[in-house]
Amino acid sequence: MTSLAEALGFAPDARVLILNADDLGLSHAANVGTYEALRSGLATSASLMVPCPWSREAASRYRGEDVGVHLTLNAEHERYRWGPITQAPSLLDGDGGFPRTVDDLWDHADLDEVRRELRAQVERAILWGFDVSHLDSHMSALQLRPEFFDVYLDLAVDFGLPIRLSGASSERAIGFPCRRLAAEEGVLFPDHLVAVGGVGSRRAIERTVRALRPGVTELYVHPALDTPEQRAFDEDWAARVDDHHLVTFDAELPARLRRAGVELIGYRQLRELQRSLAPRAELQNN
Amino acid sequence: MTSLAEALGFAPDARVLILNADDLGLSHAANVGTYEALRSGLATSASLMVPCPWSREAASRYRGEDVGVHLTLNAEHERYRWGPITQAPSLLDGDGGFPRTVDDLWDHADLDEVRRELRAQVERAILWGFDVSHLDSHMSALQLRPEFFDVYLDLAVDFGLPIRLSGASSERAIGFPCRRLAAEEGVLFPDHLVAVGGVGSRRAIERTVRALRPGVTELYVHPALDTPEQRAFDEDWAARVDDHHLVTFDAELPARLRRAGVELIGYRQLRELQRSLAPRAELQNN
Repeated sequence: MTSLAEALGFAPDARVLILNADDLGLSHAANVGTYEALRSGLATSASLMVPCPWSREAASRYRGEDVGVHLTLNAEHERYRWGPITQAPSLLDGDGGFPRTVDDLWDHADLDEVRRELRAQVERAILWGFDVSHLDSHMSALQLRPEFFDVYLDLAVDFGLPIRLSGASSERAIGFPCRRLAAEEGVLFPDHLVAVGGVGSRRAIERTVRALRPGVTELYVHPALDTPEQRAFDEDWAARVDDHHLVTFDAELPARLRRAGVELIGYRQLRELQRSLAPRAELQNN
Repeated sequence: MTSLAEALGFAPDARVLILNADDLGLSHAANVGTYEALRSGLATSASLMVPCPWSREAASRYRGEDVGVHLTLNAEHERYRWGPITQAPSLLDGDGGFPRTVDDLWDHADLDEVRRELRAQVERAILWGFDVSHLDSHMSALQLRPEFFDVYLDLAVDFGLPIRLSGASSERAIGFPCRRLAAEEGVLFPDHLVAVGGVGSRRAIERTVRALRPGVTELYVHPALDTPEQRAFDEDWAARVDDHHLVTFDAELPARLRRAGVELIGYRQLRELQRSLAPRAELQNN
């Protein structure tokens, strides 16, 4: 059976990497950092948080980069919040924004409101002019519960978009066959996702590049500038600044990727492949 | 009849000034600038925009300063927006935030939604711990149309708060007797409001201080730091930085105010007086 890498035109044992920058739209510092990472750095893909305060500014600076939608149902920061763009009482905590934790979300969210809100986020991104490349899920809220995953998968099918998915080794812990369900619907996803656990990807990237497996791997970073704004709300600002430096200015990383024979791609290649295949095509993820 | 200045304990011909800093909560740069203007500078009052992205951060840094609510139904910036904190479809433009212009607001707003939204803004500020000192109106949206003014006045009565009002000379242009209506309800307001027209108050302040009239005058500024964040969305960033410098660091302004015999107060003094008076008390604004 053809592997994803082969279907994308690579050799069967090729090491293909999507280097995604999360959290476009989060803040001014994240917008500048993410576009720099895409334009001057090694990032090949970014993910937009439509409900965040700086999403419109991100849209105004978009020049056709590989950008998907970071579907968002949480606002985790204590002093800086955002909320649904649709009427969705069950997606508000008592303080007026999205809930801060995924547990709070999973306990209280009405799934019809989830569905409407997330569809509106994708449509808003398209309306703003983004050539949406893929979907992923802020804080993995949509990946880890089957009833939320259904919404995620339906959006991927309806908009013809690939998605970020946990790797095969996490599937058992998650407790339902998310990768098989996506494959059955003809929705593409990378073979491997490198879990970072929070913000700050340097170690994960260095470890991954040393021992990259054949197939398509996704790695994500959270680039942002070191500004008073970012410092004021974000406990992880220093890790974001380090991510930004690593993918934009680091002299070693490009050499390491070259030595490892890594092929960099964005999500758009997966999207074009997905749209060219018949639904339920026979494609084997590594 | 007792004048407002006299009722506040000043001489009949005293020149009393409220120096208000608008737009607390707008951005990180506005929060830092406004608190500096209040704590180290000459500002005696500030106004919080509850629906703005940085309002919670402003709340987290509040230490009991004289802060009122800048009732907000517009989001005027092209690339940086905010929207209602209640379910209010008529207060959204097509792009998901408050309308950008007051004309758009006045044409489409449902008054029941306006009432509920603005009450929620005051209640949210109180919930966050602000000892709310007064009400004023972003872009004067509530001052210039009688049906909106009714909501403004009702909130002032219900919460026992003084309000910002246009000066007597503007009342004819506005076309309804807003000052008399407020006075009849026992709601206090400064005798004079110095209209600035947009952002950047240096000229208005210098002119006003030279020829300050007896009675209580309100002047407002929009202090903000010079940061990449503020520059990225705000055409008026330089005027805000100048306002911040003027009220926080300028060496001349304190001397000018002293020479002019100006007495600085906040809105809280008006609030305490309003609450101590019976409704419809006989008090004569200058």
